[in-house]
Amino acid sequence: MPDVGLLWPGAAGDDVTDDVAVLRALLAAEVAWVRAQAAVGRVPGADADAVGAASAELGGAAAERLAREVALESAGGGNPVIPLLARLRAAVPEHAATIHAGLTSQDVLDTALVLVLRDAAHAAVRDLDRACTAVARLARTHRDAPALGRTLAQAAVPTTLGARFAGWLGGLHAARRFLAEVAGALPLAYGGAAGELSGVAGLINDPFVLVDAWGAELGLPVPPGPWHPTRTPMTRAAAALAETCAAFGHVAGDVLQGVRPEVGELREPAAPGRGTSSAMPHKRNPVLSVLLRRSAIAAPHLAATVQSAAGLAADERSDGAWHAEWPALQQLARHAVVTARLGAELLEGLEVDTSAAARNLHIALPDARGVGVAPAIVDRVLAQLAATESAMEES
Amino acid sequence: MPDVGLLWPGAAGDDVTDDVAVLRALLAAEVAWVRAQAAVGRVPGADADAVGAASAELGGAAAERLAREVALESAGGGNPVIPLLARLRAAVPEHAATIHAGLTSQDVLDTALVLVLRDAAHAAVRDLDRACTAVARLARTHRDAPALGRTLAQAAVPTTLGARFAGWLGGLHAARRFLAEVAGALPLAYGGAAGELSGVAGLINDPFVLVDAWGAELGLPVPPGPWHPTRTPMTRAAAALAETCAAFGHVAGDVLQGVRPEVGELREPAAPGRGTSSAMPHKRNPVLSVLLRRSAIAAPHLAATVQSAAGLAADERSDGAWHAEWPALQQLARHAVVTARLGAELLEGLEVDTSAAARNLHIALPDARGVGVAPAIVDRVLAQLAATESAMEES
Amino acid sequence: MPDVGLLWPGAAGDDVTDDVAVLRALLAAEVAWVRAQAAVGRVPGADADAVGAASAELGGAAAERLAREVALESAGGGNPVIPLLARLRAAVPEHAATIHAGLTSQDVLDTALVLVLRDAAHAAVRDLDRACTAVARLARTHRDAPALGRTLAQAAVPTTLGARFAGWLGGLHAARRFLAEVAGALPLAYGGAAGELSGVAGLINDPFVLVDAWGAELGLPVPPGPWHPTRTPMTRAAAALAETCAAFGHVAGDVLQGVRPEVGELREPAAPGRGTSSAMPHKRNPVLSVLLRRSAIAAPHLAATVQSAAGLAADERSDGAWHAEWPALQQLARHAVVTARLGAELLEGLEVDTSAAARNLHIALPDARGVGVAPAIVDRVLAQLAATESAMEES
Amino acid sequence: MPDVGLLWPGAAGDDVTDDVAVLRALLAAEVAWVRAQAAVGRVPGADADAVGAASAELGGAAAERLAREVALESAGGGNPVIPLLARLRAAVPEHAATIHAGLTSQDVLDTALVLVLRDAAHAAVRDLDRACTAVARLARTHRDAPALGRTLAQAAVPTTLGARFAGWLGGLHAARRFLAEVAGALPLAYGGAAGELSGVAGLINDPFVLVDAWGAELGLPVPPGPWHPTRTPMTRAAAALAETCAAFGHVAGDVLQGVRPEVGELREPAAPGRGTSSAMPHKRNPVLSVLLRRSAIAAPHLAATVQSAAGLAADERSDGAWHAEWPALQQLARHAVVTARLGAELLEGLEVDTSAAARNLHIALPDARGVGVAPAIVDRVLAQLAATESAMEES
Repeated sequence: MPDVGLLWPGAAGDDVTDDVAVLRALLAAEVAWVRAQAAVGRVPGADADAVGAASAELGGAAAERLAREVALESAGGGNPVIPLLARLRAAVPEHAATIHAGLTSQDVLDTALVLVLRDAAHAAVRDLDRACTAVARLARTHRDAPALGRTLAQAAVPTTLGARFAGWLGGLHAARRFLAEVAGALPLAYGGAAGELSGVAGLINDPFVLVDAWGAELGLPVPPGPWHPTRTPMTRAAAALAETCAAFGHVAGDVLQGVRPEVGELREPAAPGRGTSSAMPHKRNPVLSVLLRRSAIAAPHLAATVQSAAGLAADERSDGAWHAEWPALQQLARHAVVTARLGAELLEGLEVDTSAAARNLHIALPDARGVGVAPAIVDRVLAQLAATESAMEES
Repeated sequence: MPDVGLLWPGAAGDDVTDDVAVLRALLAAEVAWVRAQAAVGRVPGADADAVGAASAELGGAAAERLAREVALESAGGGNPVIPLLARLRAAVPEHAATIHAGLTSQDVLDTALVLVLRDAAHAAVRDLDRACTAVARLARTHRDAPALGRTLAQAAVPTTLGARFAGWLGGLHAARRFLAEVAGALPLAYGGAAGELSGVAGLINDPFVLVDAWGAELGLPVPPGPWHPTRTPMTRAAAALAETCAAFGHVAGDVLQGVRPEVGELREPAAPGRGTSSAMPHKRNPVLSVLLRRSAIAAPHLAATVQSAAGLAADERSDGAWHAEWPALQQLARHAVVTARLGAELLEGLEVDTSAAARNLHIALPDARGVGVAPAIVDRVLAQLAATESAMEES
Repeated sequence: MPDVGLLWPGAAGDDVTDDVAVLRALLAAEVAWVRAQAAVGRVPGADADAVGAASAELGGAAAERLAREVALESAGGGNPVIPLLARLRAAVPEHAATIHAGLTSQDVLDTALVLVLRDAAHAAVRDLDRACTAVARLARTHRDAPALGRTLAQAAVPTTLGARFAGWLGGLHAARRFLAEVAGALPLAYGGAAGELSGVAGLINDPFVLVDAWGAELGLPVPPGPWHPTRTPMTRAAAALAETCAAFGHVAGDVLQGVRPEVGELREPAAPGRGTSSAMPHKRNPVLSVLLRRSAIAAPHLAATVQSAAGLAADERSDGAWHAEWPALQQLARHAVVTARLGAELLEGLEVDTSAAARNLHIALPDARGVGVAPAIVDRVLAQLAATESAMEES
Repeated sequence: MPDVGLLWPGAAGDDVTDDVAVLRALLAAEVAWVRAQAAVGRVPGADADAVGAASAELGGAAAERLAREVALESAGGGNPVIPLLARLRAAVPEHAATIHAGLTSQDVLDTALVLVLRDAAHAAVRDLDRACTAVARLARTHRDAPALGRTLAQAAVPTTLGARFAGWLGGLHAARRFLAEVAGALPLAYGGAAGELSGVAGLINDPFVLVDAWGAELGLPVPPGPWHPTRTPMTRAAAALAETCAAFGHVAGDVLQGVRPEVGELREPAAPGRGTSSAMPHKRNPVLSVLLRRSAIAAPHLAATVQSAAGLAADERSDGAWHAEWPALQQLARHAVVTARLGAELLEGLEVDTSAAARNLHIALPDARGVGVAPAIVDRVLAQLAATESAMEES
């Protein structure tokens, strides 16, 4: 390794889910643990500041190099926390005993993955909001624009472009709400060596006070017990991330039909460098939709990996099922983040040719009249969206 | 075909997700549509009664034979609604024009699948409730029973059996809540030929009045628009069903370790016929856990099929992605129903040998002392469970 | 249960992979074991005849009812062999000790699955042969017919219809060869209680003589050792079955584009009842391609289930991984059988509109000239196919 | 990005499948194309040398930086070939017209993936050979060592450790042969803009002469036609890579049982840094098996992604299905490479405690006698292995 995104068009700029982000999340979890110890009075605040400063240094400009070294050493113990911890302790040897005191690798790695997933979900939600706004505008604008309804690859009956867009909106909005809900519920991971908290109990009278302080430092809800082998938080996150990819996959499926030379109802936004071809310089490829569809095909398998791992959990720490989750979650989060970003770009700039849509309808169904209540459906979908939004703002 | 459960131990008695249940759900959807027309005054109530009686006859004792004939004919149009409809109309030819008026196959098939999924979810939730109650009791009973904490297949530190069971409870309870929530939100499917409701609009001034009446007949919420190619309801259901299987897979993983001859901490409940072997009559196999694990391995792939199909949706009705969902959803629902039933049986009768657990701990870690705050973790998990339950009852 | 194919259009007529076929394969494996004992002189041939007659009765007209009863009882021991065996022994109590002597359930169930997979593969290979012949003819006929080459959903450069069909042929022919090769190598399963053959060794001096005779009875190669937890035969079969579905999925993808109203280059064969619609009687849906695509979406997940199970094998008999294979293999084999049958029907009757293809090319690329060496590519593909065929005939 | 292996213990040292390897394979494909043009006399050999030197420079010490830049720019056209090509042409502008002449991105990217897959398969085959040798030795050594046969997590009957190891060997050896066969058949990808070779035909009278020369340069067989949308080579490679992971998953499953504290029959090889724990310094974790199991859980889903993509192929270049393959193939190849390396290390150093095995057998089955013909099974498996090997050497 390294992988830098060569086979992942659209992901090269991703700094939310990459290994540097993971490294920083691991450090953030460790530092927050020391800060939590300071918050409950177990160590002076200055100790936490010192560890924080050392961590900031490790996670700074040279973070990638550190990540490589840690990755290389991770084969020994089967996880990256052990070698990273050695570096952090070596950086502030006077606080070595405080750092990671009472924790186990899984506490830190799961919590770090939660932090990365939360960031990824937030990034995707922001872009889902952009996408929802854009597609709501498209639906409103083309509420009445006649279009050929197609079912099973055949001409069916007339509908409107707006109704098709309202269908996209339904999926995007549901994904957005699910993802935001899941992100808000992602919990702190804790438990110590075998989920019994004995290490933490050795530090403080009531270990939950310290655990609560850790959660507060990281802004993470504290569940009633450890979830080392109870992987619901991860499967739930995977479901929401996959749903995001599926919602945009649906959009991409329709755009890829709409841009075909024989259809010509839609065009992807023009942008410098977008859609170029190595063999045919004149061609404008629907690259955004292609990449969305790529992720819609890949994401279900990654979510299933997380589900498989969850169902195979055993003992107080799983012997391989846990490890199988890590890259699957990372890649799935990346698909969702990249998908939402590219999808928002697509929808904000999508060009609609209503004349082509009307022409295709007329050619396919020359005698058809009316579009049913397609416009009213658009209104209902938009109204519910608005109601949900205002209810969310009020709550 | 037929498949009768020969390769599906535990499913032969399933009458919630099988093809007869699907057939009846299809008929229920068609009858409810006629009843809805009666409710809004479009046809006399007696018409609905007549169609209902004909449907009851078709879905009665000979339902399986009918299902076979319909299945055989479904290859022509690619779905079972068309031939079933022909039978229903033939049974009450005087109401042929009322039956299915304004609907499309997908309205009826999706709605029927929703009805089957709702029934399956309710059945699974009932058994999840049994399982949660049983495992809560196990956790309480063995709150303080010392046990070897095992991580990465090795001895780690002491914990209690109760803490392990509390971990199971966390997963089961989360699955139960998710599944109940999803079941309650499963929506009516409607839209007509291309999601534009023109057929229904030809029957009545405001087609939504009729759609609402249909939803009311079936007890299904009515979404603002059609979801023919927007498959969120199905992916959400798939996620909750898969989570159910994963939660029990975790339980099964631990039981299958606990019953091993060298461990001997757990025993599956004894029951006549359970755990027999063709080659070794003296052997008592942990069949319940084996079958739970079976489903935990299979379910993620079925959920992924539903996700794949969702991301490939296109046009106003998908050309294959929709059809791929059907057996995947059916089988996934079956896994969840059977899993919850067998899992409840397992947990209600699980035999725990606390002496063996203590002995294993002592042999592995002769000098270890204390169990951390494992008992307090049990208390916290049980308390949160109780709080959730009482909050749910109040709401 | 039962499932009769209601959600599986195209499969209702399947009698190669359904539970009755499985039941008969189980009986065939048991009978062959008795015949093998007769062949090596351990029991009189008349005993084998008696058991064969009893088995023929059980697997006769009432086989489905028996399958149901066996399925219902299979929950006890977790597999259908135990209750089926009880029935067979009860039918010929005087041979109870000979039947299944020295075997374990897995010997019989795996061997029966192998028999079903072999039959399914043979059925699919026959239809793949039809499909290859049909598409070779299409490629030859339309070798020079100009068509628009489309890449990334856009117009690229001219090619010929024949070149596109030659691409289909490549995939179908590769799948056909792989599937035939895999079917021929599917091995007998044996090993006894824990793969040590002690039971068989108690019957005869050299147990391999008896095992070889069993293989000879069933026409199955005998591997050097048991493969109870070594699932290569099943993963290999799964790979070949999935490849079959993928090859036809590629065909279906192109047909579903070709039949779209705006394209009109292809039409599915007309047949009574094919392509009907519940809402739009005038419509002709590309049902065959839709169902092929359905299977191409579903099959990878089923193959992955078999792969997952293989990688989770443990001990001398897996505790759930084995059981997860069964329905996955059954359904995957069904997808391949149905796919090959429907695919052959599609390709044998596919209607090609060369004028429409030429027109679409001209509209999209009015100034384009030439089709490269597309015709020569067709010749090369056909020549290699012919060479392979003649080499196979000679060998 | 970058990902450096932080969540992939064991992969950090991988230089066979990482993005730098992919970059170099892309350059190798482009250079070989110029060399092929020189070989057929279209350009002077010196031109090829110049392009080769430029490529060596680009793929040299700064290859990773280049890969990052290319990755970043790949979002525009949706693949990395376009920006890489611009760099290569800029490096030797005088040969810009020769470089990539007549090719399309997919020719180069597919060929490069084939090169990476071939290298990965060869690396895995080398380690599979080591593993087979080691496990054959284990089987021979422990041919007669009594052990408890376990089925469905219960004590069954006595067998020998050698018979268990022979079962491992069967899976590993089958995977080794399949992978070697697939690697040898991985074909050159060619076809030009739409699989019609018009660009190449513009360079030379018989374009197949040039294509053949390209294949010869790279040591890749040349198939009769393009396979842009006919993905059999990729699905076949995926099947063989997944089978490799499954074969080692089976080994890992047994080792993870054997090393458990209550069993103690096996120990992973001791090595500095292997098996360390962050919370329990005294613990020795079976890290190799854990990581093998990790890959056995993940690999099926990656292989399924490749299968899904293959079945969704359409047109002369797929609009997303192609792109979904890339990271899935890369990760799957990595799983196989890492798995084979760690698996060989595990098997070469596996410590077997025959006393513990005998003791466990005696405790579980105090009255059991004999081990069936387990030793003879070992002999048969080893003999067949030897026969296959010598047949392969002769051919």
